[in-house]
Amino acid sequence: MNTISFTPIGIIQTPYEESINIPIQGSFDGKTRGCCKLDEEYQSGLKDLNGFSHVFLIYFFHKADKTTIKGKPFLEDVEHGIFAIRSPFRPNKIGFTLVKIESIVENRLYFTGVDMLNGTPLLDIKPFVKRFDNVEHAVSGWTEKHFRKDELPERTILNKQ
Amino acid sequence: MNTISFTPIGIIQTPYEESINIPIQGSFDGKTRGCCKLDEEYQSGLKDLNGFSHVFLIYFFHKADKTTIKGKPFLEDVEHGIFAIRSPFRPNKIGFTLVKIESIVENRLYFTGVDMLNGTPLLDIKPFVKRFDNVEHAVSGWTEKHFRKDELPERTILNKQ
Repeated sequence: MNTISFTPIGIIQTPYEESINIPIQGSFDGKTRGCCKLDEEYQSGLKDLNGFSHVFLIYFFHKADKTTIKGKPFLEDVEHGIFAIRSPFRPNKIGFTLVKIESIVENRLYFTGVDMLNGTPLLDIKPFVKRFDNVEHAVSGWTEKHFRKDELPERTILNKQ
Repeated sequence: MNTISFTPIGIIQTPYEESINIPIQGSFDGKTRGCCKLDEEYQSGLKDLNGFSHVFLIYFFHKADKTTIKGKPFLEDVEHGIFAIRSPFRPNKIGFTLVKIESIVENRLYFTGVDMLNGTPLLDIKPFVKRFDNVEHAVSGWTEKHFRKDELPERTILNKQ
């Protein structure tokens, strides 16, 4: 099929320079702050986003250096199809994370829920609309057994040191 | 910034050939069926996805023929920043929809929650993990006033005829 090209709208600044000690999903860390720094031409695209508590960030896994069709998620040692896990080593290295907006100042959106590397190219921001995006009775396959109790599973930090 | 290129992993088949009578979000229509037809090389990437009730489809708005930095959402006549609405006329024409899996047969994933045109290039599929992706107390900005009652707002079908 034909290639589709995108140009980043900005970059994501985070404290993580390497894939060490990063939460596997932003929802496992409510404290660390990141910043979406948009190119100035897109600043007015943030208008009214400050009324939302959460956004989806869509970005490029710029350091993902391999592609697999099946893989082991970080939470367990069992192999699943790449479309049943959130691994960056996917055919198209598109990442997305649901984050909490902390503040928006000019062309910068500060957020918590960081799980991406510093310098990540940002492709899009979409508002989280609870009427569209919450699913009350979802069933979440192989992940269910890791979240049965009200406590965190063991492996929520990538390559912890 | 540098361009980033992706190659579709398949196409999305839906009953909608034009932007008429399509729900503005898949969650407004639980009946119409669509199908993600993956290129055969990606079929094994669907392994274990049948344990999930919902997935995010990430795709290319291939018919979006303009770009705006602000725009009016279909629900109202007020202009908002493009990153505060779900319009396809965004800088990077990346669409995403949360859909319900109906069945998976070989390289085909059948789903309900259709809001995309037939022939839409599919870029990625990600499992909906309720522990990561539900937000209990989200605030959803300008959309809130349209969903205050337990009934649907007026404009949920695109260019209804």
